[in-house]
Amino acid sequence: MADRRTSKFHVLQTDEDQGSLSAWQLELNDIIFGAESRKGKAFDVFLIVAILLSVVAVMLESVSLLSDFYRRPLYLLEWFFTLAFTLEYFLRLSCVRHPLKYAFSFYGIVDLLSIIPTYLSIFIPGANTLLVIRILRILRVFRVLKLFSYMHEAEQLVWAMRSSKRKILVFLYFVCTIVVVFGSIMYMVEGPANGFTSIPKSIYWAIVTLTTVGYGDVTPSTAFGQMIASATMITGYAIIAVPTGIYTAELTQAMRAKRDARGCIGCGKTGHELDADYCRHCGHELPE
Amino acid sequence: MADRRTSKFHVLQTDEDQGSLSAWQLELNDIIFGAESRKGKAFDVFLIVAILLSVVAVMLESVSLLSDFYRRPLYLLEWFFTLAFTLEYFLRLSCVRHPLKYAFSFYGIVDLLSIIPTYLSIFIPGANTLLVIRILRILRVFRVLKLFSYMHEAEQLVWAMRSSKRKILVFLYFVCTIVVVFGSIMYMVEGPANGFTSIPKSIYWAIVTLTTVGYGDVTPSTAFGQMIASATMITGYAIIAVPTGIYTAELTQAMRAKRDARGCIGCGKTGHELDADYCRHCGHELPE
Amino acid sequence: MADRRTSKFHVLQTDEDQGSLSAWQLELNDIIFGAESRKGKAFDVFLIVAILLSVVAVMLESVSLLSDFYRRPLYLLEWFFTLAFTLEYFLRLSCVRHPLKYAFSFYGIVDLLSIIPTYLSIFIPGANTLLVIRILRILRVFRVLKLFSYMHEAEQLVWAMRSSKRKILVFLYFVCTIVVVFGSIMYMVEGPANGFTSIPKSIYWAIVTLTTVGYGDVTPSTAFGQMIASATMITGYAIIAVPTGIYTAELTQAMRAKRDARGCIGCGKTGHELDADYCRHCGHELPE
Amino acid sequence: MADRRTSKFHVLQTDEDQGSLSAWQLELNDIIFGAESRKGKAFDVFLIVAILLSVVAVMLESVSLLSDFYRRPLYLLEWFFTLAFTLEYFLRLSCVRHPLKYAFSFYGIVDLLSIIPTYLSIFIPGANTLLVIRILRILRVFRVLKLFSYMHEAEQLVWAMRSSKRKILVFLYFVCTIVVVFGSIMYMVEGPANGFTSIPKSIYWAIVTLTTVGYGDVTPSTAFGQMIASATMITGYAIIAVPTGIYTAELTQAMRAKRDARGCIGCGKTGHELDADYCRHCGHELPE
Repeated sequence: MADRRTSKFHVLQTDEDQGSLSAWQLELNDIIFGAESRKGKAFDVFLIVAILLSVVAVMLESVSLLSDFYRRPLYLLEWFFTLAFTLEYFLRLSCVRHPLKYAFSFYGIVDLLSIIPTYLSIFIPGANTLLVIRILRILRVFRVLKLFSYMHEAEQLVWAMRSSKRKILVFLYFVCTIVVVFGSIMYMVEGPANGFTSIPKSIYWAIVTLTTVGYGDVTPSTAFGQMIASATMITGYAIIAVPTGIYTAELTQAMRAKRDARGCIGCGKTGHELDADYCRHCGHELPE
Repeated sequence: MADRRTSKFHVLQTDEDQGSLSAWQLELNDIIFGAESRKGKAFDVFLIVAILLSVVAVMLESVSLLSDFYRRPLYLLEWFFTLAFTLEYFLRLSCVRHPLKYAFSFYGIVDLLSIIPTYLSIFIPGANTLLVIRILRILRVFRVLKLFSYMHEAEQLVWAMRSSKRKILVFLYFVCTIVVVFGSIMYMVEGPANGFTSIPKSIYWAIVTLTTVGYGDVTPSTAFGQMIASATMITGYAIIAVPTGIYTAELTQAMRAKRDARGCIGCGKTGHELDADYCRHCGHELPE
Repeated sequence: MADRRTSKFHVLQTDEDQGSLSAWQLELNDIIFGAESRKGKAFDVFLIVAILLSVVAVMLESVSLLSDFYRRPLYLLEWFFTLAFTLEYFLRLSCVRHPLKYAFSFYGIVDLLSIIPTYLSIFIPGANTLLVIRILRILRVFRVLKLFSYMHEAEQLVWAMRSSKRKILVFLYFVCTIVVVFGSIMYMVEGPANGFTSIPKSIYWAIVTLTTVGYGDVTPSTAFGQMIASATMITGYAIIAVPTGIYTAELTQAMRAKRDARGCIGCGKTGHELDADYCRHCGHELPE
Repeated sequence: MADRRTSKFHVLQTDEDQGSLSAWQLELNDIIFGAESRKGKAFDVFLIVAILLSVVAVMLESVSLLSDFYRRPLYLLEWFFTLAFTLEYFLRLSCVRHPLKYAFSFYGIVDLLSIIPTYLSIFIPGANTLLVIRILRILRVFRVLKLFSYMHEAEQLVWAMRSSKRKILVFLYFVCTIVVVFGSIMYMVEGPANGFTSIPKSIYWAIVTLTTVGYGDVTPSTAFGQMIASATMITGYAIIAVPTGIYTAELTQAMRAKRDARGCIGCGKTGHELDADYCRHCGHELPE
């Protein structure tokens, strides 16, 4: 039963030590934090729509033409979303066993950051920068997604990413070194006259070049500089193979391990394809 | 026999319930929708050439220099193709069992969209935009390709793509979030003065940077902005490993599964290479 | 013995039907086309150096500053290489059994194209364009490389490329369609006013964007255009997984097949690592 | 015991032929070159921090605004680091068995290059270029990292890179040829009038395009030039699959080989996952 729990703040009705919460708190908890009941699902869908709409509203507000024209409706919409999310925030606080623990959890902080800026804007008018923080609302969608089985798919991806974390870190330090060395060489070769005004700026150029982004805001002008730039590009073009190789190898292994773990109840043999429904050795139906 | 049918509108002469179509309709259906008979193959080759030529004609028409000079021949060519495709459209309608079903199928609509704009241009002169729709003719080539075995090769690619669809969607939502967050940060840091005039435009910048396209039409000017841009680039450079890893793992599995499925008739053992012609255990010839 | 032959024009001294060539022709053939004898190796090394030097000379000649200053030495150098390569060309013709077959082979034509332009430049002065053709000399290096075992390594790469050829072609046609459709949409949306002057130019933009090159010479200006551009970029960023997946899967299979083929003479078991020297089942030395 | 040695200059206290070093040299050697003792670890952490700080100081010095304002503190900081690294250099020399061998080893030279420029700057004032060399200090971090187990992770990456070295070299020569050929064609087609002023510059353009960097400082203007540029881009987009495929295949093999090598002491069976702690056949604990 425990595995049906979809959030660490979700209290199942069958929990033995749920004594601290009253009946309405348990039901509210089930709606807000759970995704099994019909009401819980409806709430989640409604929440995702509200979050995405409010994010779009924050974006449009920043477009000066639109914000001049639709100042009033955007203003009202923003307060509507803020009040709704505030209500939701307090409901969440009211129906968990440890409100403080929730308030300081990752999503608790994101929830707070999504509503605070609007209130602060009353006292500090024109705090445009502050209002941008509300865009972090987009992170709240992940909490809802986590409740649906769709996120099940993401687990393998994250698992492979975690397995390759140490290798990726070694690779990133390697990239940093290359970028510092190539950037410094270019600072010597091209110099401030050609736009490479300092080592940090030259390193910025090296990152732009190595990652094959290539803005073209800083480009080599001398023949020797273009040769070093060419070397940087080809290096960047070749070593992209490294993170790709690491991740692919880990993901292949993760998928193989999952396949190996699928044992048939009938004959005990493993190694079934992930999309197979019946054992290929004895024809017995396979478990999910 | 049913597997020789190469389109859902293709009626085989041996079908039992072909009663609703007369003899000439059956033959026409075989030529237009089939690819087995000599006439059917000739029709398909002719059609591909006509489609590609008409697409090139539409392209050239848009080049102002050429369209001024060759206005007359291009005009005549366009009407020739339009009339030919119109005739083909009605022939297709006339020889299928359910003309309406065909008209509302994907290719039925593409066929219609390929000819309509030219007729409309008589009534609405100067409707340049409308005429561009004719370029969708290029999609019609896929119908013909589907008839040839060449498309057989594409099946594995599409199969692997479909298997990884859910993982790719999760990845895309992840990319969207990164792009929104990085874009908003840059809007705060750089601001309208440096070209980041609104959050949507900053998100556009983040997409240009993360995908390593790097137009350079919007670039960071402040030192802090360049640091965040560098972080965006390195993120984009590293996470390209994710879709590549997903697709490679799925494709490897698809090819392995196909290899596992190749059983020898002689000894029953599986696991033969896809290009093997004889069983490596007993020497028996392998099925295709 | 036949497998030691490294070029189809190489005549082995042990060939039975070598009657048509005299002794000095046989020896010359061994030096020029072979790589086994000491003289043959020396000739190949010398040739590679000469080719690379002459390619560098052609490059430097095109730099206006250098070519003004070093006109005389570059002129002499060019004629030295041309005469040397001409001599080599006639020596090659003189020592093969079928001179015409050689002259019309791929490398025969490349050899001719490497020397012809210099002679033509006497009659057609200022034919700058013509002289660039000499750069094709760089292709001649491959013939020499083919003789060394280094090219052995390239075989697997080419084998995997050939196996995935059909899949890659399907992918390329798919890319062409995407590029035509996205290009046409941008032509409609942005129009000639924003630099998308014709459909071919818009398709050029779509290729620049989809391949994540991103020059920035043509960029979207309207909000809607930037949305479509974003879609193009993300598509390009995601589908690079397809060729990578195809090639990786084929190469993995090629390497596995080669490993499976390595049988131990002692116990007959296969599946040895490519860098293993002894059988891991019975300790017997493994064949190369 | 020998495998605990983490540097070729590290002398273990248990070495039999350590006679040439006195007791304090042995202890110093253990602190400076080793990472096992508490003092050795503290020294390594301290050194990494010092190196990174001094690299940041060199970078900031190159920013003209900062270097004008903080000239004095940066000057003092630089001399502090130089003197500290000089002391460390001589300590290293004093506690190894073969000081000369150390002085001419890779890290010995890097150590010297990290301090020399500052001393030289007294005699040759304004030698800005010279001072940049100090940035090579960043390479010193690798020596320290090598001592920690973190570098253990890098071994697989380097192993796979070394295995694929020959294949990558063949690929790089192939890329060079493509780049020379495409660059020369563009020089012919576009010519000096459109920015393709010489063949080397055109080759620079071809590298920028093929690696999908795409600065946009040199772009094709003619229709034919844009077609060739498109071909270059699609080539670059497709062949990135080659290094990625090579590296992924080698890394997958390296990981599989490591897995195959993990034998259970209890039952002798191999093929355990790298993160498994117990044998899946007999439940016996697995060796690291």
